[in-house]
Amino acid sequence: MSTNSANNNIKSKNIFAVDHRVDLEERWDGNGHKGGILWFTGLSGSGKTTLALELERQLIKHRYQAFVLDGDNIRGGLNRDLDFSPEGRSENIRRIAEVAALFSDAGQIAIAAFISPYEEDRQIARTLRPDLFHEVFINSDLAVCEQRDPKGLYKKARAGEIPEFTGISAPYEEPANPELVIDTAEDSVLESVYRLMDYVGSEFTLQGQVKEVA
Amino acid sequence: MSTNSANNNIKSKNIFAVDHRVDLEERWDGNGHKGGILWFTGLSGSGKTTLALELERQLIKHRYQAFVLDGDNIRGGLNRDLDFSPEGRSENIRRIAEVAALFSDAGQIAIAAFISPYEEDRQIARTLRPDLFHEVFINSDLAVCEQRDPKGLYKKARAGEIPEFTGISAPYEEPANPELVIDTAEDSVLESVYRLMDYVGSEFTLQGQVKEVA
Repeated sequence: MSTNSANNNIKSKNIFAVDHRVDLEERWDGNGHKGGILWFTGLSGSGKTTLALELERQLIKHRYQAFVLDGDNIRGGLNRDLDFSPEGRSENIRRIAEVAALFSDAGQIAIAAFISPYEEDRQIARTLRPDLFHEVFINSDLAVCEQRDPKGLYKKARAGEIPEFTGISAPYEEPANPELVIDTAEDSVLESVYRLMDYVGSEFTLQGQVKEVA
Repeated sequence: MSTNSANNNIKSKNIFAVDHRVDLEERWDGNGHKGGILWFTGLSGSGKTTLALELERQLIKHRYQAFVLDGDNIRGGLNRDLDFSPEGRSENIRRIAEVAALFSDAGQIAIAAFISPYEEDRQIARTLRPDLFHEVFINSDLAVCEQRDPKGLYKKARAGEIPEFTGISAPYEEPANPELVIDTAEDSVLESVYRLMDYVGSEFTLQGQVKEVA
């Protein structure tokens, strides 16, 4: 028996021929909504994680498939080998972007909440799934973020204990054309989450369907 | 206004207090089944990817949340920077294990299909989510895999064109206590997928619920 005919025999057993993966549309139909990537960018203390986790909670409650990627579940796991050098930060964002893309391939709404200060890195993230990528600028004045200082990081940065801290000793490049801007210096968490849910309700709803979001 | 009272003011606006993430049980209830990690290990040509993709297709059809991680969507993306050296292979598996863990945190059934020849690497993967980890040994004799040789890799390995090829010039450490063994030298793809779906039906079903799987 030649290798070729052996191959043919084996192939003939593959009565479940696998030519391609499950269509994204099939996943969306099953979930009742589209998937994609909500990429939250903003200064430390702007409210990214707070809003991401609350949005996730509301979406799960309304039977959306949604999952937050943030420092809490990335830095101690997948990216535990990376430091905060410029190269480490870029690789950090690159890997997160790849993981967010995989979650969107699974039909999920991936909510990535990272400072992601560089336009170039965010562009790379967008390029992976351009049709599914939504840049959300969590905007707040540096002064407001510094006053909040929920983790005491600004204080340490001002004291020179943290080198290259975004907004203090490292640049933050504001998004030029984000899909959505949330102004957390003006709006409360409640108002901000409502705006985010409105956005999801309009952008992630399947054609011809209305899904209750609030 | 002191920093403290400013912080208090901001906190008082957080009427959606975010203390913790969405419970896994809440996701499982929403999905109608448990999530977890099906870790397929086996030789090249044993049928890992074929079975993983077909299992995924059947599970999606039956409204499970399931997603395949395999060379196709990992090596060209998240792990594009890694080579096939021992260090590169270990880091490859480490990252995949972390991503599979994140998918299980999202309530999904993550199906990871990688040779993953080293017991130590698979143990690391298990340790991340020990209660959600299911090792599935896709077992087939080397001779059968080599005869199938769907990608022509064994031929190249025998010709010395691929160094450190698992089963030929690099070891494959068989799982000592896998949760499930699928014998693809004996069983057809159809039979193997049925066995996998039976396993999912018994291991990923919520207590007191019966979910149709076939």
